[in-house]
Amino acid sequence: CSKPQFTVKSVLVTGSNRGIGLGLVKRFLELPNPPEWIFATTRELAGCQSKDVSESPVMSIDVTDPNSIKAAAKRVEAHLQGHGLNLLINNAGMLRVTTMENENVETMAIVYLTNTVGPLLMSQEFLPLLKKAAQQSTQTGLSCSKAAILNMSSIAASIEVVPLWELRKTPSYRCSKAALNMITRCLSLEYKDCGILCTSIHPGWVKTRMGTEAALQTVEETTQAILKIISTLSEKENGSFMGWDGKIYPW
Amino acid sequence: CSKPQFTVKSVLVTGSNRGIGLGLVKRFLELPNPPEWIFATTRELAGCQSKDVSESPVMSIDVTDPNSIKAAAKRVEAHLQGHGLNLLINNAGMLRVTTMENENVETMAIVYLTNTVGPLLMSQEFLPLLKKAAQQSTQTGLSCSKAAILNMSSIAASIEVVPLWELRKTPSYRCSKAALNMITRCLSLEYKDCGILCTSIHPGWVKTRMGTEAALQTVEETTQAILKIISTLSEKENGSFMGWDGKIYPW
Ligand SMILES: NC(=O)c1ccc[n+]([C@@H]2O[C@H](COP(=O)([O-])OP(=O)(O)OC[C@H]3O[C@@H](n4cnc5c(N)ncnc54)[C@H](OP(=O)(O)O)[C@@H]3O)[C@@H](O)[C@H]2O)c1
Ligand SMILES: NC(=O)c1ccc[n+]([C@@H]2O[C@H](COP(=O)([O-])OP(=O)(O)OC[C@H]3O[C@@H](n4cnc5c(N)ncnc54)[C@H](OP(=O)(O)O)[C@@H]3O)[C@@H](O)[C@H]2O)c1
Repeated sequence: CSKPQFTVKSVLVTGSNRGIGLGLVKRFLELPNPPEWIFATTRELAGCQSKDVSESPVMSIDVTDPNSIKAAAKRVEAHLQGHGLNLLINNAGMLRVTTMENENVETMAIVYLTNTVGPLLMSQEFLPLLKKAAQQSTQTGLSCSKAAILNMSSIAASIEVVPLWELRKTPSYRCSKAALNMITRCLSLEYKDCGILCTSIHPGWVKTRMGTEAALQTVEETTQAILKIISTLSEKENGSFMGWDGKIYPW
Repeated sequence: CSKPQFTVKSVLVTGSNRGIGLGLVKRFLELPNPPEWIFATTRELAGCQSKDVSESPVMSIDVTDPNSIKAAAKRVEAHLQGHGLNLLINNAGMLRVTTMENENVETMAIVYLTNTVGPLLMSQEFLPLLKKAAQQSTQTGLSCSKAAILNMSSIAASIEVVPLWELRKTPSYRCSKAALNMITRCLSLEYKDCGILCTSIHPGWVKTRMGTEAALQTVEETTQAILKIISTLSEKENGSFMGWDGKIYPW
């Protein structure tokens, strides 16, 4: 195979105790050349499934709690022993099933804090380690093997499409993911010169607690497809909105 | 002139003590056929300039405070004496001059609460009066003379464009306005069958406290242009992102 090998030396995934996050950790472990460091993280350590799949320690990160993020960044730095972090996957997210009528200050705030502010805080705190990975890399251009932030967005973020309106309204979720796409754009502009890529990912509709059993894809299919996609990302896809299916989605 | 006359019987503008909001109230008063009810509203009544320009009472609305919105909706309903409210202009907004580094939970939250959640809460609370206006209207289709919600967005909301990045970062503001555009889309889908139009407006770059003296347009120019634009809005522009210049901007 003539393609350059996809080699991520270190990756951190938020919300990896279940669902898509757990699937991503498993797929990284199954790679022919798995990362040396896989930081599976979870809001609560008790009963965390990722403990069983990762050799790196499972860490606690609540993305809404700046102190827990700061503490984790310190621990990750210690583990990496001078190496940078190649890949930060902001996967943790929540959905409140709301309508236009019952949406309120509380639901709007908690969903935004989790889905939009969380990824921003994570990116701020892990920035030094991402920069270090970019500096240590001999690769030109941008890639997930070098240094990257992937934000788990959703087609629900698309202001253009507003998909499946009649099925589910959830304005707080749609707003939070549209704003997350804006965070992706801001990060992509701010840090491309530091060698850091940033892309939004739409994972499809996936059988998880959030996606429900009615969803079209399994976690295994989706995460397999996502790993394939992210192995191909370059500066062309910096600041874009990429589907698990390789399609670019409209903002 | 063969165009149907632009007749708004009642309009409410948030944040109309200064800037674009005050300009809009003045322009409505200057119309050959001004609205019967112009509800100028302000966060704090003390020292409010709109008191001098509007014959309707100036009311206090802090768009981040659900109780103040509820109280104002009751007072507006009493004033309207059985009539509906034709036009709600969600103009109030705030900007924090932030960077990717110093943005934090507090700045993200307050800007979102003001610029995104505020317009949603306003729309929820004034919905019965807007529905009533639509029902009382003899016009077919959608228009600002019948029943409409206008959200004062900004080109800064554009995830596609991310304008003037090198000049000003302000991720909290960009995120809040992108999310406001999503609110516009949600409202436009949910209430079109009730006869209510919803459109996002980009007012240009305007000399106000927020826009600074460096801005390109005066409040007078902008508000004149906006009144012209909104007099033409129909179902075609429902759920769109319209500039003061009549252009449609990308999400
Ligand atoms: N499933 C789909 O069809 C679909 C479609 C589009 C986008 N997405 C996105 O994909 C991502 C993963 O979703 P999923 O389907 O795997 O959902 P899920 O099964 O409900 O898992 C959500 C994960 O996020 C974690 N989480 C929530 N709030 C957190 C916080 N404050 N701090 C840290 N972790 C937190 C959860 O941890 P706990 O176990 O502690 O709650 C859980 O691990 C989300 O961002 C979601 O919006 C999913
Ligand atoms: N100027 C521009 O170039 C420009 C460009 C794009 C978009 N916009 C948008 O246009 C709208 C008006 O902006 P502007 O330029 O006129 O700004 P401005 O002169 O700073 O005025 C902002 C107005 O919003 C009010 N406000 C802020 N927070 C509020 C709250 N919680 N409750 C009620 N009112 C509140 C302010 O009231 P106080 O006096 O009490 O603070 C003031 O009346 C904003 O939504 C802004 O984002 C402006």
